[in-house]
Amino acid sequence: MLTQEQNERLVRTGPGTEMGDLLRRYWIPALLAEEIPEPDCPPVRVQLLGERLIAFRDTKGRVGLLDEMCSHRTASLFFARNEECGLRCAYHGWKYDIEGNCVDMPSEPVGSRFRERIKHPAYPCVERGGVVWTYMGPAELKPAPPELEWAMLPGSQRFVSKRLQETNFLQAMEGGIDSSHVSFAHRFNMDDDPMHAGTEGLVYLKNDTRPKFEVSESDGGLLIGARRTVDEERYYWRVTQWIMPWYTIIPPFGTHNPLGAHAWVPIDDETCWAWSINYHPTRDLREDEVASMVRGEGIHAKYIPGTYRTLANAGNDYLIDRQAQRDKRSFSGVEGIAAQDFSLQESMGPIVDRTKERLGTSDAAIILARRRLLAAAETARGGGPVPGLAPEHHRVRSTSVLLPKGTPFQEGAQEALVAKPGEEFVSI
Amino acid sequence: MLTQEQNERLVRTGPGTEMGDLLRRYWIPALLAEEIPEPDCPPVRVQLLGERLIAFRDTKGRVGLLDEMCSHRTASLFFARNEECGLRCAYHGWKYDIEGNCVDMPSEPVGSRFRERIKHPAYPCVERGGVVWTYMGPAELKPAPPELEWAMLPGSQRFVSKRLQETNFLQAMEGGIDSSHVSFAHRFNMDDDPMHAGTEGLVYLKNDTRPKFEVSESDGGLLIGARRTVDEERYYWRVTQWIMPWYTIIPPFGTHNPLGAHAWVPIDDETCWAWSINYHPTRDLREDEVASMVRGEGIHAKYIPGTYRTLANAGNDYLIDRQAQRDKRSFSGVEGIAAQDFSLQESMGPIVDRTKERLGTSDAAIILARRRLLAAAETARGGGPVPGLAPEHHRVRSTSVLLPKGTPFQEGAQEALVAKPGEEFVSI
Amino acid sequence: MLTQEQNERLVRTGPGTEMGDLLRRYWIPALLAEEIPEPDCPPVRVQLLGERLIAFRDTKGRVGLLDEMCSHRTASLFFARNEECGLRCAYHGWKYDIEGNCVDMPSEPVGSRFRERIKHPAYPCVERGGVVWTYMGPAELKPAPPELEWAMLPGSQRFVSKRLQETNFLQAMEGGIDSSHVSFAHRFNMDDDPMHAGTEGLVYLKNDTRPKFEVSESDGGLLIGARRTVDEERYYWRVTQWIMPWYTIIPPFGTHNPLGAHAWVPIDDETCWAWSINYHPTRDLREDEVASMVRGEGIHAKYIPGTYRTLANAGNDYLIDRQAQRDKRSFSGVEGIAAQDFSLQESMGPIVDRTKERLGTSDAAIILARRRLLAAAETARGGGPVPGLAPEHHRVRSTSVLLPKGTPFQEGAQEALVAKPGEEFVSI
Repeated sequence: MLTQEQNERLVRTGPGTEMGDLLRRYWIPALLAEEIPEPDCPPVRVQLLGERLIAFRDTKGRVGLLDEMCSHRTASLFFARNEECGLRCAYHGWKYDIEGNCVDMPSEPVGSRFRERIKHPAYPCVERGGVVWTYMGPAELKPAPPELEWAMLPGSQRFVSKRLQETNFLQAMEGGIDSSHVSFAHRFNMDDDPMHAGTEGLVYLKNDTRPKFEVSESDGGLLIGARRTVDEERYYWRVTQWIMPWYTIIPPFGTHNPLGAHAWVPIDDETCWAWSINYHPTRDLREDEVASMVRGEGIHAKYIPGTYRTLANAGNDYLIDRQAQRDKRSFSGVEGIAAQDFSLQESMGPIVDRTKERLGTSDAAIILARRRLLAAAETARGGGPVPGLAPEHHRVRSTSVLLPKGTPFQEGAQEALVAKPGEEFVSI
Repeated sequence: MLTQEQNERLVRTGPGTEMGDLLRRYWIPALLAEEIPEPDCPPVRVQLLGERLIAFRDTKGRVGLLDEMCSHRTASLFFARNEECGLRCAYHGWKYDIEGNCVDMPSEPVGSRFRERIKHPAYPCVERGGVVWTYMGPAELKPAPPELEWAMLPGSQRFVSKRLQETNFLQAMEGGIDSSHVSFAHRFNMDDDPMHAGTEGLVYLKNDTRPKFEVSESDGGLLIGARRTVDEERYYWRVTQWIMPWYTIIPPFGTHNPLGAHAWVPIDDETCWAWSINYHPTRDLREDEVASMVRGEGIHAKYIPGTYRTLANAGNDYLIDRQAQRDKRSFSGVEGIAAQDFSLQESMGPIVDRTKERLGTSDAAIILARRRLLAAAETARGGGPVPGLAPEHHRVRSTSVLLPKGTPFQEGAQEALVAKPGEEFVSI
Repeated sequence: MLTQEQNERLVRTGPGTEMGDLLRRYWIPALLAEEIPEPDCPPVRVQLLGERLIAFRDTKGRVGLLDEMCSHRTASLFFARNEECGLRCAYHGWKYDIEGNCVDMPSEPVGSRFRERIKHPAYPCVERGGVVWTYMGPAELKPAPPELEWAMLPGSQRFVSKRLQETNFLQAMEGGIDSSHVSFAHRFNMDDDPMHAGTEGLVYLKNDTRPKFEVSESDGGLLIGARRTVDEERYYWRVTQWIMPWYTIIPPFGTHNPLGAHAWVPIDDETCWAWSINYHPTRDLREDEVASMVRGEGIHAKYIPGTYRTLANAGNDYLIDRQAQRDKRSFSGVEGIAAQDFSLQESMGPIVDRTKERLGTSDAAIILARRRLLAAAETARGGGPVPGLAPEHHRVRSTSVLLPKGTPFQEGAQEALVAKPGEEFVSI
């Protein structure tokens, strides 16, 4: 339970807000690289943290991310011409390069130097892991580009999707670090994700539906341990990495299956991009695995064709099937692991009223993540260091292991929690 | 004409408002019993007086009406499982009984007593007359359940429907106690309602289009008399009962036809449920009568299939037919008595601006009903008695009678205005 | 660039606002005469400057424009009966004539004089040029009816259309006095308008894409001169008339082609009517010309059938065709001169934030028009004279001429800028 004031501090991400300033210190997943597939392709609209932007790939293949509205008369650059290393506004022909320089101003007299005084807002971009990332913070504080394991792999070893979620980013992310809901919302569908196939862990998961949670701070975020009893001597531990400010890695099911990961990024304060990634550090994804992801199975979602909006949505009650609910094919009647999550998260309203919640021991990760975000925002305002910026904060893995009852997971799984490029990960 | 401040006092019904507090002193028609037809059927969303609720029928057939949002993380209980005498949230499995007790909390450790500290908001319900009624006020002030004549009859003697109206409840109700509009809005359709068939009254109604109104307070609301001249010696009186806070009974057309009644209940301040009831105190409704009601004739309405929204609505200009208007088949061009009313009421906007109206003598009932509501709200705030709560305030009838010119209707129709179970009503 | 306060002063047009008061001093194009084609036809909704009105043509063919909401209980007169020289509300039968007199009040007792105290808001109307114009200002300040050349011609010599634009009127009008955008937004479509066919001017227009602008005040508005170099001795001048408060005349392309004109009228502060007119002062429009206008070519637009909403709109990204953009068939990818304009204007948002713009020398006309509007509003408040009201302010023409380099256009084109009924206009 938060005060209304705490809730506001956490969910507002526009320019100048406390959380907005913090989030702007990180590289931000902005769009799929495939949305701007080739040089001089059409520009696309991108909204991030309340700011309306236009992404384009210039003639040399470089990515630009500009304020959507032309500096001249504020017409949308969505209608602009992407040509000869710049975006030319369709209204009066002002042209910008990827850095926001006005490189042509044909509406003004020959010899005018007006264009030199125009600096159009532009954010630097990098491409990694099939994603265009941008940095929207102060230039002098720009950190090294993201090094999340999935972002550093060749394309054949990963699959990245995004979907629009109609809630604040925090509400979506809280669902991602809430290991407890899995036993309920997904109870009848844990076998459905092809990424779970044939693993010992699933048996332990089903045998003990009341896991104990242990959450501790990592350098870059949180380590969220959920332990289930296996027998007299051992616990089955599932350890989730939460990396500031919005990344999670799902504990694996066996080393033969791909890993899963997420990111939740504010579009504005009432919508966010839910990013979902499957990847395998030591092998290519199989054709059947990719086909399943393309179909929107597992952590991915089915779309309204031609959009990143989900087919199941508030407008159709998420295609709820009461018979499937009755027959224990779906706990809530909603089909698909992703839709089971976002249907419940959206049902809380676009910004959940956290003054009304009643948190239990199973909500420890949520409580700590909020605290960490608020503390980091305060520290950042004071000029202090921000967690989750250093490359080693990104080079981590989640894990699932059996440990003797007396062994703290932080110790027993210590090595398993570090990402080692080219090396197999640890999972039973 | 009201001041803006008076208007606000009348139309705001959310928790803590003056009118909201008053309305919460009464049993409220919440939903049709048929919406939750059997034990453990799917829960349904219900919104009343601005509060979002979930109705369900438990394994024993008892009705529960809970706050829609789970006490834990405020996910919607629309997705909950209705099983084993309780509603189990689909997110983390918290389970509530019809009284709002948290009877299971499987996400917390065995032995946790956290669930005992959770009291989920729940409102008591009764079923009567095919309707689930709820009481949303202070427990210690809960009155006896409703005893409106139609609510006490067996199902074979009544037909109850509800439709969504996109206005404040008061605006809708004012239409119901406004006998004057009948001669205009419904002028060319008075014969259409099968409930009017073959009655003397219709002739008097058409012969004198300028009735004189006499309105007086009854114990539970208002008696609204409209008199029309029959001949030298007699008046044709139509007397409408308005029962606090939102009920009306339509004066009958002959004793062979069923009676009609209404209720208008706030969903929020800009929408309401318009309830319409036909009933006969001494006989079953005939098959052809019920068929006509199911078709949406008379005081009932045609729906968009699968909803309680009307087929004719603002989005399609109420299917206005200008040729029918020209041909005097419909005064406004809108088809159907119900749609003729709600099209005009909705055309005033969701909350009519009563500072702009200019009321005449024919608006006496409206003026007095507002006054009574405001006075009752004030009295209630002061701890005083509230009209319309006592069973005898419900046990009333409307009537249509011929009286000698010198006889006040309150006197001449006195006996006719009391409901006597099993006894024929009075109407010419 | 304006301050937020200046922007607000310019765009707010509701009753009592500074700009609203100014605009109410002029005759306002309210609706097409064809929308109320014959006596006693159905009334139509009209919204102007934020006021909701109902237009009707009475039994004698006279046009009335009344407040939409009945004075009695504020039901919409959209549902009213248009009969026997008045509009009768469908709720209780109150009837108004075109002057807003309540000529019948059948809901009140015989002999009641209540109706004499009702004065329903009504605005005087005139019909000219296929348009119903209204005057919404103080009666004592009502100017002579409009005398724009196109409004004074017989129907065979003009074609008038209107379309809904989802921006403030000023934003739309700024597009109309912005000669600079033509070389960009319409670059690949200048030959498309059949009204441009076979003229010398088009060649000069294409040869010099950086015209110099000279803007000077006229008695009724602005003279906007754009000059392009023809050869050593001569300039090609295109001179646009802007007539207060919202009219423009497009400089002609040859005397064999019809002229073009516009008006932009606030519906509310976020939508406006864009009026487009083609006319020829000395001949009838040809059948093929009218056919092209009906098809929505040139300055006219294609509609969603049965509406004045454009087929290309924000909901479908204006049917942008990226291939056409790449192939240089359309600069922005949007098809049609009108849609190229309104797509960009609407992309700025319903009310453009003028604190963010960066104006150049090519924006001189926009800067001066804003200044003139603000100055006129201030003068009007102080009781001073308002430009654009006198008949001679309306009796003007735009022109396109070749002039020796030394000759100011105001001098060289002086005669060409005056409308002379029945006389040919001047254009190369």
